[in-house]
Amino acid sequence: MRTQVAIIGAGPAGLLLGHMLRAEGIECVLLERQTGDYVLSRIRAGVLEQVTVGLMERLGLDARMKAEGLPHDGFNLADGERLIRIDIKALTGKEVMVYGQTELTRDLMDATAERGLEVIYQASDVALHDIESDAPYVTYSAGGAQQRIDARIIVGCDGFHGPSRQAIPASVGQGFERVYPFGWLGILADVPPCNHELIYANHEHGFALASMRSHTRSRYYIDVPLTEKIEDWSDNRIWDELAIRLGPDAAAHIRRGASLEKSIAPLRSYVFEPMRHGSLLLCGDSAHIVPPTGAKGLNLAASDVHYAAEALVGFFKANDADAIVGYSAKALARVWKSERFSWTLTKLMHRFPEDGPFERRMQVAELDYIASSEAAQRSIAENYVGLPV
Amino acid sequence: MRTQVAIIGAGPAGLLLGHMLRAEGIECVLLERQTGDYVLSRIRAGVLEQVTVGLMERLGLDARMKAEGLPHDGFNLADGERLIRIDIKALTGKEVMVYGQTELTRDLMDATAERGLEVIYQASDVALHDIESDAPYVTYSAGGAQQRIDARIIVGCDGFHGPSRQAIPASVGQGFERVYPFGWLGILADVPPCNHELIYANHEHGFALASMRSHTRSRYYIDVPLTEKIEDWSDNRIWDELAIRLGPDAAAHIRRGASLEKSIAPLRSYVFEPMRHGSLLLCGDSAHIVPPTGAKGLNLAASDVHYAAEALVGFFKANDADAIVGYSAKALARVWKSERFSWTLTKLMHRFPEDGPFERRMQVAELDYIASSEAAQRSIAENYVGLPV
Repeated sequence: MRTQVAIIGAGPAGLLLGHMLRAEGIECVLLERQTGDYVLSRIRAGVLEQVTVGLMERLGLDARMKAEGLPHDGFNLADGERLIRIDIKALTGKEVMVYGQTELTRDLMDATAERGLEVIYQASDVALHDIESDAPYVTYSAGGAQQRIDARIIVGCDGFHGPSRQAIPASVGQGFERVYPFGWLGILADVPPCNHELIYANHEHGFALASMRSHTRSRYYIDVPLTEKIEDWSDNRIWDELAIRLGPDAAAHIRRGASLEKSIAPLRSYVFEPMRHGSLLLCGDSAHIVPPTGAKGLNLAASDVHYAAEALVGFFKANDADAIVGYSAKALARVWKSERFSWTLTKLMHRFPEDGPFERRMQVAELDYIASSEAAQRSIAENYVGLPV
Repeated sequence: MRTQVAIIGAGPAGLLLGHMLRAEGIECVLLERQTGDYVLSRIRAGVLEQVTVGLMERLGLDARMKAEGLPHDGFNLADGERLIRIDIKALTGKEVMVYGQTELTRDLMDATAERGLEVIYQASDVALHDIESDAPYVTYSAGGAQQRIDARIIVGCDGFHGPSRQAIPASVGQGFERVYPFGWLGILADVPPCNHELIYANHEHGFALASMRSHTRSRYYIDVPLTEKIEDWSDNRIWDELAIRLGPDAAAHIRRGASLEKSIAPLRSYVFEPMRHGSLLLCGDSAHIVPPTGAKGLNLAASDVHYAAEALVGFFKANDADAIVGYSAKALARVWKSERFSWTLTKLMHRFPEDGPFERRMQVAELDYIASSEAAQRSIAENYVGLPV
């Protein structure tokens, strides 16, 4: 098979990019290792920046998001019994959209047939070849047979563990990493949220996050040592801990329910440079990971797609070879700023084992300062709604 | 001898407080371990916030400062070849005053005789007694004889190593400390500054600061490991290193000259709580230390004096016992915020031995973000000019 752009991975990054290219009349094929159902079963973040909402609008795939998503104009930082509200709408004029990554992915998947976006599922043993040439190709196995797709450009949207980033020689790339000494234990349940806005809490017991997917589905998190096992956390134990960490006001409104899903996810900051090598571009988690604090993961993938689509349109439709060359620097400038925000919000809202009493007081002082300063609140708000692309 | 307020220490904090009390007709005596000349020989910071300038104005001791001081409406963060200017005047409507701590201390000392402010110099073996009672007293040696001052209130303005803080029982107080793995090597020289505004630089070689005391006197710093000895740093070696770290634009304007003073000072963050116990109040370095990044040391002492003078006026003139009780919480709220700012600016502008490549990139991302965000610049500026008292 021959195409203009081979996209590895059909999660939200790959699907977004595929739809963007189709809308511009650029040929592409998506290769996905898993089934579509598996992709939809992955529970991820659910707060969309304007850049992400904007891509769905440009694609004309925003109808369900607009109907079912919850626009939020603020969120909260909790510290003991204090709640600091960040009024993002008043501070930036913008809002965010609470709409699960799963729902956004479903909307993108549902539109593939109608828009002629080809997705090959259950493609195993995906390998990239000749990425330093003008004629790269991808091989994979499907139905027991070896297959090959020739392309002009390959885009890796295949996540942290996918083959794309690993196809870049170690001599030209560098990874920057920070691993955190805890994970997030998440619980999803069909109960109304305890608060109409998100609450990030830094409590003596540790971190907690109250969030939601809809008016009837809640998503909560607490941080736990990486040595904890999910089997040791009954639903009730999680609800009890949430009630403590979120503080009495939120606790009074927590509705408990059976977990639809619960799991422990490690936290990591990671950036790979460059985000282009030869004829290969990286988008989303294949190039970078953020800790979930601030919900930047999907949104960073969306801004990568924004830059990548722009570069590919310039490359294929305006014969601008430099458009591809410039992609990495443009994408990375925004990536590093989001990494910074995710890192600082993670440091502000979690208790780190290595921190002593002075560092703990610095957290309190930072929260005191944020509570008292419009400039500090505006800085947080503009990062939360998403820096300009 | 009997007085209303015994002030331990006649550095800028003690002198400021003494003059404030005299202006309100409250009796006080200052006890200083050193000679006046020694006090004036200590080279310290030289950037005054509005709160410090305001105290000098209220005392009517601002004439020389206004004539000789340099109002600054901005400062700079340097990162390699980039200079990020923080336009503090445009961002906050306020400015800072470059005027050496030595000069401010001299102005306060010169006015003591005329205003009847009694300072006892060379008072050794100062000890505080009965601070938990309503009749505390201070003993000291002078001219070979043991002396005693009875007071209603004692105020410790005697710095980090003075006896005042140590008079508070360990059971009621707690110190919070962070020691930094480097010191600042400072050089003072009678040469014009390389730039009309301060430059804080984070260079591959380490930190540098270009500052000044006047149009003809410069003060520069570089950070060095604590193991370095000042004897190993010739003037020329310091000038060479400054030229590298400050970047080519600043280097082109560096005027070299013989050092009037050079020394290596360790960096420390420290806060002692509470800042009042019984009849003893702490002001300035006796209760807290900041790293010099951002020049908050003298300014924090001034805001302590502002709160202490307010408390003592309420106590002595309005018979408000609660005024004294409330001092610690009021002063500490501002202290912690300044500690936070000094700590974050120190972390942003220095290379820490424990930081890896990811943490270094976070510094770059933070500087990139600051360069691009008015909200971030405003947050820095409002801290630099001083948060409201």
